Amino acid sequence: MPEDDLPDYRTDRSGWVPGGAPLRVVRARTVDDVRNTLAAAHRDGTPVVTRGAGTGLAGAASAGSGTIVLDVSGLDRILHLDPVDAIARVEPGVITADLDRAAAAHGLFFAPDPGSVAICTVGGNIATNAGGLRATRYGVTRDSVLALDVVLADGRLIRVGRQTVKGVAGLDLTALIVGSEGTLGVVVGATLRLLPRPRQVATAAAYFATVADAAKASIALAAGGLRPSVVELVDGRTLAAIDALRGTAHAGTGDAFLLVQADGFGAAEEIDAVAGVLGRTATSVRTTLDPDTAAALAAARRDALPAIEAKGPVLIEDIAVPRSRLGEAFDEVHRIAAETGTDIHVFAHAADGNLHPIIRTGDDPAAAHRAADRIFALALDLGGTVAAEHGVGALKRSWMERELGPDVLALQRRIKEIFDPTGILNPGKAL
Amino acid sequence: MPEDDLPDYRTDRSGWVPGGAPLRVVRARTVDDVRNTLAAAHRDGTPVVTRGAGTGLAGAASAGSGTIVLDVSGLDRILHLDPVDAIARVEPGVITADLDRAAAAHGLFFAPDPGSVAICTVGGNIATNAGGLRATRYGVTRDSVLALDVVLADGRLIRVGRQTVKGVAGLDLTALIVGSEGTLGVVVGATLRLLPRPRQVATAAAYFATVADAAKASIALAAGGLRPSVVELVDGRTLAAIDALRGTAHAGTGDAFLLVQADGFGAAEEIDAVAGVLGRTATSVRTTLDPDTAAALAAARRDALPAIEAKGPVLIEDIAVPRSRLGEAFDEVHRIAAETGTDIHVFAHAADGNLHPIIRTGDDPAAAHRAADRIFALALDLGGTVAAEHGVGALKRSWMERELGPDVLALQRRIKEIFDPTGILNPGKAL
Repeated sequence: MPEDDLPDYRTDRSGWVPGGAPLRVVRARTVDDVRNTLAAAHRDGTPVVTRGAGTGLAGAASAGSGTIVLDVSGLDRILHLDPVDAIARVEPGVITADLDRAAAAHGLFFAPDPGSVAICTVGGNIATNAGGLRATRYGVTRDSVLALDVVLADGRLIRVGRQTVKGVAGLDLTALIVGSEGTLGVVVGATLRLLPRPRQVATAAAYFATVADAAKASIALAAGGLRPSVVELVDGRTLAAIDALRGTAHAGTGDAFLLVQADGFGAAEEIDAVAGVLGRTATSVRTTLDPDTAAALAAARRDALPAIEAKGPVLIEDIAVPRSRLGEAFDEVHRIAAETGTDIHVFAHAADGNLHPIIRTGDDPAAAHRAADRIFALALDLGGTVAAEHGVGALKRSWMERELGPDVLALQRRIKEIFDPTGILNPGKAL
Repeated sequence: MPEDDLPDYRTDRSGWVPGGAPLRVVRARTVDDVRNTLAAAHRDGTPVVTRGAGTGLAGAASAGSGTIVLDVSGLDRILHLDPVDAIARVEPGVITADLDRAAAAHGLFFAPDPGSVAICTVGGNIATNAGGLRATRYGVTRDSVLALDVVLADGRLIRVGRQTVKGVAGLDLTALIVGSEGTLGVVVGATLRLLPRPRQVATAAAYFATVADAAKASIALAAGGLRPSVVELVDGRTLAAIDALRGTAHAGTGDAFLLVQADGFGAAEEIDAVAGVLGRTATSVRTTLDPDTAAALAAARRDALPAIEAKGPVLIEDIAVPRSRLGEAFDEVHRIAAETGTDIHVFAHAADGNLHPIIRTGDDPAAAHRAADRIFALALDLGGTVAAEHGVGALKRSWMERELGPDVLALQRRIKEIFDPTGILNPGKAL
């Protein structure tokens, strides 16, 4: 790879740069590269920061002075895809969308679909237990991981998990390692569950006069016995940003937008029921079974982050609250924006109560960070979490004791010591 | 409770009785009862065997000499059920079917449905990570547990997990504790996820000339893009046992039976597609949307275990294989029966590759155990697990090193030491 195509190994998509520069970068091509790197680092006590595509949003892959960067993005093969068992065995550097495309060739799909699906790696999804738009129906990354090949800190290679959907032999180390952000070991292989690709996707798009109305409508779907695969809420400020970027007229249509999709058998019938529920309070509702029309309707969600980022640099936040508190959470985030004088746009995976407040940092980065801290406190006050699906990394680590409590955090740190007794694996991150 | 209504605290539904009798039985009524019992046991180094309804099938709740039995079945309140957030907070002694009934009053359901759903407890489901018939679509118990209140070995009370569907703050101790069979702590409260109750259930019932045909048909469903909620396979020997008990004529209709259910929107359309796939090789297929007819069709599955048990005492086994090996697994189990001279009936959660070989022990218990060992070896040879959904307990513990390998088992044991440094929690079980 030519030098100027190399990523900036000091940071990830969060933009957070720790002090100093890494000692060196190892671009692993084989499992043995990973084993040898860790074995040597373990001997020397050198910190190792494992890295995939660098699309993380919490600084988990940011690497400061004295660290070795272990880039596993070159371990990028789909080793095996069994259409009968609906299982794929992959290396960690496989791009998530590439796996989904390979599955599609067999009428299957890979459920996890984080916003960065086209550029992120499966290994990164595993490291952060990434969620995505379809998580409300199909679960998060953990729910699709059956087994992992993991290189421990001392260079030993272990396999945890199983090749079957069910299995209860021993403690679930697979679930423990998923979401551990490179602190317990380095994933060099994953056995993943695939699902039959839904034969039909039906889409509803609705505008509301207020974000509170949209939040209530999103909750009414579940209360009405509906179980859509996608329920996305976009606030008015975000709609205005899209209009500014694209020349569209979303903001004139309403102050909030809800995108709902149902899939599989009965998708058309379910989306009609969805439209019935939304129609009680929406200012307009459209439904479609046509993929191109659906893509057009989904633009008000798909363009959200690009439109906000077009205005300048941002903090991409990620909290979850019980969904009954969703409307309150939107209102409070907007109030925090007003009180801190910051510019905050919000969209949400509404059915999961998962909000992404996007805070512009351009004018006053300190104010943006103060706003973020108030948003984290809000999440906990509402019974939620400061980290819904983007990980903890470096940026939210100071919140862990408050969210988890000292006893639970101490247990987690002792578990890490078992896997990594010399503390070389991504120190200062996550735990 | 009058003395003769007391359960035999030395054993569970596996019938396995360790030597000697427990020191005493604590019937906990409060969380403090649990905390005080554990704190004292921790001080004294006395082993504690936690117990719910005693319906376990692997001897995890069997209690031998020198142990304290901690019966938490009296902690049996549904503390809170929030229909908007679709979350229930329960004590561990709640009967699983009672929770599902309480959820049904709000149009919700609790997905885990082990065969013992009418008599087992939620705490026992959590301890074993119980599966059930609907697991193929709705997951196992772990997938429905959001948070746990856990008393640690030393009597401290911790809470792990979260009140939201998504959350990635720290290592997933909730997933670690689910399925740990009382070896890491005592669950005294659980926050559980509920789902919208499917508005329609559609049923297909088919007979096949051979169990191999039925196994192939069950696999063809997934390959055809179908995702039913129930796919149950019953072998000919089991059908004959049901005929003997009930005076029915299943065995005359075919040598294998497949029960398939689809639910939710599009259930009727999906079951028609199911019938189309099954009809290619079945000797007969019926479908229905009527609940009473469905219950009648399901009798050939529902009566399976009672009919086999009516012939005498049994070992209830529980293995899983990749579903592509399902037919091979059935054939090999039948061959093991012939070669060991044992009477083995088999039914299966076919879509999960999860077989329950039921081995009669009456005539020659030693031969039955030899057959069981060959079945466990078969499961591993086919790339599967010796413990799919019933737990490891005492009875499968000797297989753990072979299935997990020494490195992984050592890691698990060291994790247990963190939670339970003096080794009082269910020693000799699971790990």
